[in-house]
Amino acid sequence: MASPLIEPVARLIEAFNRLPGIGPKTAQRLTFHILRAPETEARTLAAALVAVREQVVFCEVCFNISDAPTCPICRDGGRDQRRLCVVEEPLDVLALERTGEFRGRYHVLHGVISPIDGIGPDRLRIGELLRRGDEAAAGGLPFEEVILATNPTLEGEATAMYLDERLDGRVGSVTRIARGIPVGGDLEYADEVTLIRALQGRRAIADRPR
Amino acid sequence: MASPLIEPVARLIEAFNRLPGIGPKTAQRLTFHILRAPETEARTLAAALVAVREQVVFCEVCFNISDAPTCPICRDGGRDQRRLCVVEEPLDVLALERTGEFRGRYHVLHGVISPIDGIGPDRLRIGELLRRGDEAAAGGLPFEEVILATNPTLEGEATAMYLDERLDGRVGSVTRIARGIPVGGDLEYADEVTLIRALQGRRAIADRPR
Repeated sequence: MASPLIEPVARLIEAFNRLPGIGPKTAQRLTFHILRAPETEARTLAAALVAVREQVVFCEVCFNISDAPTCPICRDGGRDQRRLCVVEEPLDVLALERTGEFRGRYHVLHGVISPIDGIGPDRLRIGELLRRGDEAAAGGLPFEEVILATNPTLEGEATAMYLDERLDGRVGSVTRIARGIPVGGDLEYADEVTLIRALQGRRAIADRPR
Repeated sequence: MASPLIEPVARLIEAFNRLPGIGPKTAQRLTFHILRAPETEARTLAAALVAVREQVVFCEVCFNISDAPTCPICRDGGRDQRRLCVVEEPLDVLALERTGEFRGRYHVLHGVISPIDGIGPDRLRIGELLRRGDEAAAGGLPFEEVILATNPTLEGEATAMYLDERLDGRVGSVTRIARGIPVGGDLEYADEVTLIRALQGRRAIADRPR
């Protein structure tokens, strides 16, 4: 039996299906949506796909995504140059920026150390991070604090520990983001490791009326 | 605070987000996948999107998707010309073709009658269906059977009933696909309407050894 799928349709289903988290059924649904939607919708998406690959580069300083050799955050003179936040991926920068809580700069590793996947420190932007620390110190403005904001996963923790060792002596202090019960979460459903971290990370209630 | 999202990235997230079932988080994830994936992946998807809109038309006879004025199924002389299966959408043709059970032709309505959404029979390919029936009869080869394979939803059933009335006398017989317990399903969890349909549709067990 010949496939009733004409070729351009089959090819679009296949292309959608290659995206992460898009199965064959969803790929089919998206393709038939594109067939029915106004033609501008298909063209807008196609143009955005090409543009993102043509116009987006990685920042030479922090390796975040950028539309210029250095990214908007690295170019922003109003940000604290002495505080650096190390993250795994550009999406983590986005998440942190949405909080408005951190006003320093970033360094994107583009992954974590994962021996199982054959990813050693040399495959990440760790050499560049250490150099950044050394250069800042040589320039008379060493980093006061480097916040390690890799994910609280096995690999993220191992990477943080590795970075802590390598950064020791090169920067003022190295800190790690707190791990604990998420706000709105429930102790009853928290896993043991998270509970242990939440206990270990306990602090005095600072703004108690005195 | 300026958005840390550079413009081409923001635009691609927005374009993905416009697709059905793709929320803002998924749109972000897909965008960052495109940024990291080999450049050919972005280009292949972009080209497939444009091609599908440029090359795909609707068949003049059955209104299924096609790469030519008439679709591969309508062009296929080996298919039963006296049997017609009426479906809501091109995706339904795909689903039925995968079974290999039906060897006749199709007619795609492109929707169902839905007064609530302001969709009357004139908004669907119903006029064309009736004309098809009349022309086949005039040509001396009237349809022996028209199978109504709209979905067993409120609108699908209403559309089937409407079509049954309009097709009466124009074609040999009008049938409706069976509604019942899906294979692998469980009576215990079936809704009442499905159970009623399953009982009403009961048949003698044909291939019992005699």
